[in-house]
Amino acid sequence: MAAIGDNKDNVVVPKMKLERMLSMKGGKGEGSYANNSQAQAQHARSMLHLLKETLDLVQLTATDDVPFVIADLGCSCGGNTIYIVDVIVKHIVERYEASGEEAPEFSAFFSDLPSNDFNTLFQLLPPMANNGGGSMEECLASTTHRSYFAAGVPGSFYRRLFPKKSVDVFYSAFSLHWLSQVPEIVVESRSTAYNKGRIFIHGAKESTANAYKKQFQSDLAGFLKARSVEMKSGGSMFLVCLGRTSVDPTDQGGAGLLFGTHYQDAWDDLVQEGLITSEKRDNFNIPVYAPSLQDFKEVVEADGSFHINKLQVFRGGSPLVVSHPEDAAEVGRALANSCRSVSGVLVDAHIGEQLSEELFSRVARRATSHAKELLEQLQFFHIVASLSHACR
Amino acid sequence: MAAIGDNKDNVVVPKMKLERMLSMKGGKGEGSYANNSQAQAQHARSMLHLLKETLDLVQLTATDDVPFVIADLGCSCGGNTIYIVDVIVKHIVERYEASGEEAPEFSAFFSDLPSNDFNTLFQLLPPMANNGGGSMEECLASTTHRSYFAAGVPGSFYRRLFPKKSVDVFYSAFSLHWLSQVPEIVVESRSTAYNKGRIFIHGAKESTANAYKKQFQSDLAGFLKARSVEMKSGGSMFLVCLGRTSVDPTDQGGAGLLFGTHYQDAWDDLVQEGLITSEKRDNFNIPVYAPSLQDFKEVVEADGSFHINKLQVFRGGSPLVVSHPEDAAEVGRALANSCRSVSGVLVDAHIGEQLSEELFSRVARRATSHAKELLEQLQFFHIVASLSHACR
Repeated sequence: MAAIGDNKDNVVVPKMKLERMLSMKGGKGEGSYANNSQAQAQHARSMLHLLKETLDLVQLTATDDVPFVIADLGCSCGGNTIYIVDVIVKHIVERYEASGEEAPEFSAFFSDLPSNDFNTLFQLLPPMANNGGGSMEECLASTTHRSYFAAGVPGSFYRRLFPKKSVDVFYSAFSLHWLSQVPEIVVESRSTAYNKGRIFIHGAKESTANAYKKQFQSDLAGFLKARSVEMKSGGSMFLVCLGRTSVDPTDQGGAGLLFGTHYQDAWDDLVQEGLITSEKRDNFNIPVYAPSLQDFKEVVEADGSFHINKLQVFRGGSPLVVSHPEDAAEVGRALANSCRSVSGVLVDAHIGEQLSEELFSRVARRATSHAKELLEQLQFFHIVASLSHACR
Repeated sequence: MAAIGDNKDNVVVPKMKLERMLSMKGGKGEGSYANNSQAQAQHARSMLHLLKETLDLVQLTATDDVPFVIADLGCSCGGNTIYIVDVIVKHIVERYEASGEEAPEFSAFFSDLPSNDFNTLFQLLPPMANNGGGSMEECLASTTHRSYFAAGVPGSFYRRLFPKKSVDVFYSAFSLHWLSQVPEIVVESRSTAYNKGRIFIHGAKESTANAYKKQFQSDLAGFLKARSVEMKSGGSMFLVCLGRTSVDPTDQGGAGLLFGTHYQDAWDDLVQEGLITSEKRDNFNIPVYAPSLQDFKEVVEADGSFHINKLQVFRGGSPLVVSHPEDAAEVGRALANSCRSVSGVLVDAHIGEQLSEELFSRVARRATSHAKELLEQLQFFHIVASLSHACR
């Protein structure tokens, strides 16, 4: 880590520390990810046809002794990852069935940072069907059992996680927009990229946004390099992350609205009320970057080991799932829970749980008074990438 | 599950429920397994030479593309499992070095029931060395980094956990004496095997102990059957579990002293003080069985798929690790913590945390007044098995 001056308040979360800390909110409470990932579920389901197109490109091997291996990278701890792995297994079993070949055994790896709540995930996993066996019909019909061996893999997907040439299908949804770290110069008060007054790059200086862009591209390059080693030669990869339609990285689209408006204002409230110093706020930065298609494509092309089957931006819908859209308070709470389930762990670590409570109650209050506008305007775009090994 | 009569109080923990519940005590508190497994660590270290003898029997493959796979079954959540996996990796790397072949990549699977505290385990895991690579010298010298890919596998080792022919070395220490369930007839009040008045089989009726023996042998048979499918053809297995030197299963040796004397008396205290009913006590049974060598051997031979390299009973030392053996209160607390770290989760579920607190304080008190005797007499014996695939 570079030296960051003498200002003691100016503490940067170093790369290793962010990795050991970042996670979606665990457990099953109101602000937990398990209870606030319905939007991610909807978005993932809306892209199932694209996922299946990718799965159709995977080479099926005929050797019964080698398992078919699936890895969900950035799986978090809710039911979405279990649902998706089930979809993947069933689709591949159907392809084997159609080909007349016997399906091999399946292994699924659920991977996320070590701070992820794997305990909750493992308790949500359905029990295994009889000895991993059972007929193909049973496997396809079952909703209460899993027909694959399951394992959790703690670690950063920006580095190696699996043995070489061991994985058939990589899946990663809503995770690659999380940077491995806040770029150091963004929290260095003497740097021109210092993100003074802001907790996110939406509406920030160009130099700040460019530091984020550089970090995103270097992280994605690390991701692709690791996967290219780990993927079997006939394998494929389906990636979805937040994206933006604007060329300008200081316009972060839906992510900008989520982290850059009411959330930003709530941080400013804490400063103005004297609950935290302005430096404390300025040292907090959301390590998220919504790339443009071009940002993403440049990295895939520079890496060169993957053939691009598909690389597009899709309108992904709203992160807010509410039962009564006319109830402004519910909309406000939904926005606050949405922010909290994905960034609450970082906020707790930065200002403590009590101030975190204060912060998110202000997010809810501010969002409540803009409920209608939020419902109309808050809209995510996603980058969807389907990649296969270039050299078959 | 068989019908168990109309007595509502007579609730059996069914097999699936025990699997979802049983675990060593998680977290890092005074009664946690992470803080009460020094004895297991000492016992494991005292058997390292036997482990290494087993490792010397594993066939090394020359194909660099297939990882060398290690699985620790019943890993729990402390540092012992990480230490042992490190020993195994380093020993195998040394064998490759000696043979002049390049070592492949290593994968380690840490497996335990879904209720195990995998979060704590994953946070104890050292970070991976540079991209899984690094020179052999670096790998052998490193104590701060791991040189293997790590994954956690939630599930019962009495069934399949891994794809077929995928594991080179299985290791399991201090786990196989945990039964998959308390035999139903042991908690059925109208059965002749009903364990009235007792929470363990030490000193119980022959029919009760035989029900435990039958359960142990059926569980071990399931374990061996699953492993014989999962093990690579040149693989080996090193197993250690509590054992006894007596032929009579109602004499459980060290396990008997641990669960059958002061612990038993403390349960009786709760009954006599009117804090729980006698039925409540009678429905609690520690699902542990310390087999004789003969009990164990019969199952291995009946299975038939493994060659026995070694199968012996070893004196394992005391489970009590105390700094001041002359301090009776410390010895008492050590015994209570020892009982609690391995069975506290079951007790909490059976009588609630508050009564559990009462129970273990009585265990400590009773053990304190027998401190000298405990230090002299409490002694574990272990069965150590080194097995390889019969058909190479």
